[in-house]
Amino acid sequence: MIPSQEYFSTASKLNKLTTELSEQQVASLSVNGERLARDLHHSCQWGPGIRWGPNPTDTGMQRLALSQEDKHVRDWFVQTMTDLGCKITIDELGNIFAVRPGRRTDVPATFIGSHLDTQPTGGRYDGILGVLSGIEAIKTMNDLGLETEGGVGVVNWTNEEGARFPISMMSSGVWAGKISLEHAYNLKEVPTVASLPTAASAPETVKTALDMIGYVGSVPCSYKATPMAAHFELHIEQGPHLVSAGQRIGVVTAVQAYRWYKLQVTGRDCHTGTTAFQHRADAMYASARMMVKAREVATAHGCLASVGIVDARPGSVNTVPGLVSFSLDIRGPETSAVDVVSKKLKEEFDAIAAEEGKGIGKPCRVEWELDFDSPAVEFHEDCISCVQQSAEAVCAQDASVAEPKSLVRTIMSGAGHDSVFTSKIVPTSMIFVPCKDGVSHHPEEFTSAEDCATGASVILQAVVRYDRKRFQN
Amino acid sequence: MIPSQEYFSTASKLNKLTTELSEQQVASLSVNGERLARDLHHSCQWGPGIRWGPNPTDTGMQRLALSQEDKHVRDWFVQTMTDLGCKITIDELGNIFAVRPGRRTDVPATFIGSHLDTQPTGGRYDGILGVLSGIEAIKTMNDLGLETEGGVGVVNWTNEEGARFPISMMSSGVWAGKISLEHAYNLKEVPTVASLPTAASAPETVKTALDMIGYVGSVPCSYKATPMAAHFELHIEQGPHLVSAGQRIGVVTAVQAYRWYKLQVTGRDCHTGTTAFQHRADAMYASARMMVKAREVATAHGCLASVGIVDARPGSVNTVPGLVSFSLDIRGPETSAVDVVSKKLKEEFDAIAAEEGKGIGKPCRVEWELDFDSPAVEFHEDCISCVQQSAEAVCAQDASVAEPKSLVRTIMSGAGHDSVFTSKIVPTSMIFVPCKDGVSHHPEEFTSAEDCATGASVILQAVVRYDRKRFQN
Repeated sequence: MIPSQEYFSTASKLNKLTTELSEQQVASLSVNGERLARDLHHSCQWGPGIRWGPNPTDTGMQRLALSQEDKHVRDWFVQTMTDLGCKITIDELGNIFAVRPGRRTDVPATFIGSHLDTQPTGGRYDGILGVLSGIEAIKTMNDLGLETEGGVGVVNWTNEEGARFPISMMSSGVWAGKISLEHAYNLKEVPTVASLPTAASAPETVKTALDMIGYVGSVPCSYKATPMAAHFELHIEQGPHLVSAGQRIGVVTAVQAYRWYKLQVTGRDCHTGTTAFQHRADAMYASARMMVKAREVATAHGCLASVGIVDARPGSVNTVPGLVSFSLDIRGPETSAVDVVSKKLKEEFDAIAAEEGKGIGKPCRVEWELDFDSPAVEFHEDCISCVQQSAEAVCAQDASVAEPKSLVRTIMSGAGHDSVFTSKIVPTSMIFVPCKDGVSHHPEEFTSAEDCATGASVILQAVVRYDRKRFQN
Repeated sequence: MIPSQEYFSTASKLNKLTTELSEQQVASLSVNGERLARDLHHSCQWGPGIRWGPNPTDTGMQRLALSQEDKHVRDWFVQTMTDLGCKITIDELGNIFAVRPGRRTDVPATFIGSHLDTQPTGGRYDGILGVLSGIEAIKTMNDLGLETEGGVGVVNWTNEEGARFPISMMSSGVWAGKISLEHAYNLKEVPTVASLPTAASAPETVKTALDMIGYVGSVPCSYKATPMAAHFELHIEQGPHLVSAGQRIGVVTAVQAYRWYKLQVTGRDCHTGTTAFQHRADAMYASARMMVKAREVATAHGCLASVGIVDARPGSVNTVPGLVSFSLDIRGPETSAVDVVSKKLKEEFDAIAAEEGKGIGKPCRVEWELDFDSPAVEFHEDCISCVQQSAEAVCAQDASVAEPKSLVRTIMSGAGHDSVFTSKIVPTSMIFVPCKDGVSHHPEEFTSAEDCATGASVILQAVVRYDRKRFQN
């Protein structure tokens, strides 16, 4: 039996142009969820992390940016996209753009993008799902013989995590002209991360690491050299809202503001056994008090403050540390709230430092260095509406669901994503799917194959809808 | 003019046996302070640390146990002592015993001992002065033609600091039968210290490090194989009491109790931007609260508690650490006080851990591992009285001093020293000299050449007095 023209599986051919589809045909588009899951876990063979369960895919990921594991998955990505008929562009920061040509050759492509690098103790979905959903969208379009007006691209952004090289969203930032290429090239890897077995033992820079894996492309890293029509990104929520409400899709309208600081607290080394507390300028004790204070102040202002990296010197059991540095990540729904918390913490930390060591007339000092500043972002209404319509349509595909709209909500992103930077240049929005317990940046980060497929179908439809919006008049 | 028999400089010959000296002759013994200072700074050419002033000797020391720098100073020590007519014994832990023979060959020697290794940001006096004062005492005895009844030895103990390999007083502990050789051999270097440029880049054990510098001797490390009659040790005070009272010699009667723990706090890694505080099990935040609590509890019980080493994993700006380990050094005048503080902190830390993560039903856990336990020690009355008499006599040598006794006080040691372990087996005591601002384990650690010489003259006399005490009757 031949299926009707209006209802089809991914195996049946449409052989149409996006602008020729009916709304019902668009609403019926969906990806092959099994294939997506298979491809996703296949790509996770490069850089498996900590095992947490008995099944083959029950491991986290440890695929630090520009590591050998990252090289392997990049090679696979390039080969896969080439086989699907895409044209590959690699820029000077190793960003890989793979474009499935559209009917028109004189317009930029609409992109699906995210990143294949992970945290040192990351999971299988953060970033990876975003790129893999792009691959699956292209595969589905090929299956259907669906032609687009403008091209459709998939981009893998270099070092989104900022774990190995401590600036997140690094390469989308350079692409958007918000971070200089030189600054990115010269970034040194974080020692604590670099000392992990999968990273190089000597500190590398972004440039030397790119050279080592052969991913310095010839094209400038810029939206001018590699333009886009729009940028869509599918991501796990990394928070508990969708999963605890039993919802399936978050239409991301905005990203909260955040800032990364590096703090250095200077006291005086002394002997732990012979130095009374009042004779100490203990940089670790002062830092501990600051860490406790940071949560207190952030809470009072509806913000977050977190310490991820700590280094205490000289690092000996019986020497009171005279030098401690730590990272401080402050986030809030508005840029102004992050401002207020930063300012308040500067005062509080100065007061804590002044107290520690006053007995010897050599109080601790604290210095702040701003590593990264990402003001709050609002996504583009055109992209948001494409995602909203697609999310409702995909949820409605499940006949057992009484109120498909109830499975969709708008949401603000707590984390930064490459979409933050693309949004400065081109219309952008994001799609969130639930993840177990809201946990990410953890080996047990998990999103069901069904939720992954739902998200991928939404991004496929969103891209098709955006293409129609651009060229249907 | 020939000086009278009773008054002599170190240049004039006595050519006598210790037991033939008059009390006045003993009281007049003093070392060559200039030569001591010269030798001390000469030995500091191996492993100079952070520079803090313009003069050639204005640097700290960084001579980690069993490093190449340690090998060089050991080679120099062996050569120097051989040239002075001493017999060298190196045991299987690299302890170096250099003995100047006495008249009697059937009795163990009286030892002057300390260590040539330093903290990663240490100074030029901690340990080094102890060994160098022994060398200077031997040189002075040679100058004087002073024969002893029993031999007089100088011992350099391996890894007293416990900085590179995290057990302090390691080899005197094995010598005394209180630490097993196997445990010492298998100790791994601390990564934070090992990553310093002067240490090996791959983690070594004590055994591999000993092999690398060729200091595995054939003699068992034991008081049975290398017996001693007594052990005297000269050390800087590392505290402010002598310097603030304007006193010159501390007669050390006891050493406070201390314990070294390694704590591990386990929480859950999660994203810093998307995880509300109540959904976190932040191992770093919990650890910071514990560090603050440790000082509070220690203060309440007249003890000290210090955190020197901190390691937060995975060590990424935007991941909340799920695993933090830190060292905890607890000290108190009595063993029971250290007991009480340890017990109280275990309760308090459990309570802190239980609070952090209770929102997700996965509270943090804290595990304690005892690395080292050194109960309070009382030194031997025979040795103490030799030091007391010698200290008063040396202070009386300065004719400008009205009340020599006022420059001497008894004192308790806050720090552990090799004398803690030798005291378990043989009569032992120590001599303290003042150090600037009471600071040690710091590059600016400083004791004047005059104070060094005073201390060395005291230890010389103490050894002579002890020899007389043993054999005069």
